[in-house]
Amino acid sequence: MERYSDEYWMYEALKQAEIAFEEGEIPVGAVIVVRDRIIARAYNQTEKLTDVTAHAEILAITAASNALGAKYLSECKLYVTLEPCLMCAGACFWAQLGELHYGSADPHRGYSRIPQSLLHPKTKVSSGLLADESKNLLQAFFKNLRN
Amino acid sequence: MERYSDEYWMYEALKQAEIAFEEGEIPVGAVIVVRDRIIARAYNQTEKLTDVTAHAEILAITAASNALGAKYLSECKLYVTLEPCLMCAGACFWAQLGELHYGSADPHRGYSRIPQSLLHPKTKVSSGLLADESKNLLQAFFKNLRN
Repeated sequence: MERYSDEYWMYEALKQAEIAFEEGEIPVGAVIVVRDRIIARAYNQTEKLTDVTAHAEILAITAASNALGAKYLSECKLYVTLEPCLMCAGACFWAQLGELHYGSADPHRGYSRIPQSLLHPKTKVSSGLLADESKNLLQAFFKNLRN
Repeated sequence: MERYSDEYWMYEALKQAEIAFEEGEIPVGAVIVVRDRIIARAYNQTEKLTDVTAHAEILAITAASNALGAKYLSECKLYVTLEPCLMCAGACFWAQLGELHYGSADPHRGYSRIPQSLLHPKTKVSSGLLADESKNLLQAFFKNLRN
């Protein structure tokens, strides 16, 4: 039996998003969990690394594969504060991710605006966990940027 | 005026694919060119790095951004031997890539099976350069794998 709820893990992802916020990055955070243990934590670092591919999910998937010594993450759960973009959904597909939990929706850049199913058929998906907290952080970031 | 043709650069990408082949990786290679100069060379390293995100295009985009010290590659041309997957097309979108030239089509995993335009509106695309050479290398790889 698992001791922690999905919400518990999403709070951990939100903590990563808060680090991104503090560092002037678009605040998106992610954790990857396997059998009640976090094996990867990451936040968006596109500015710091000067690399558009350094989204939280990509960094988390690379770190999780490194931690497990395995390319496929079918036993893993990814918690990410914002709906993944197409690039990150594509990475989830290749990783054969077990579960994807995302917080707030991203109507402009989220993968679900494409009607075709882009994820692996085995990947279970949930959305909306701590969505308001995630959205508030993003809105505060973009408000700061405009000012 | 540019001294080299698109075919010249695609041969350079094919050389990268051949290195992948020799190393037991699915043979896909890429180069990124800016103003007649290669600033990144990469080949698929998903096996060696145990990382599904280590496609040739992702590694090349990361390397090119590092070489330029810039996140956006709107002055750059990416030559890749196989049609990019959704993950890599998403990375090309974020990078605001100037030109994408790919060799052989990938009807199963290529980004163009999605009817919506996934690339950046500014990205110019061509396909088919050295497609047979790219396909032959991929077919030889999968034939070896089966035997």
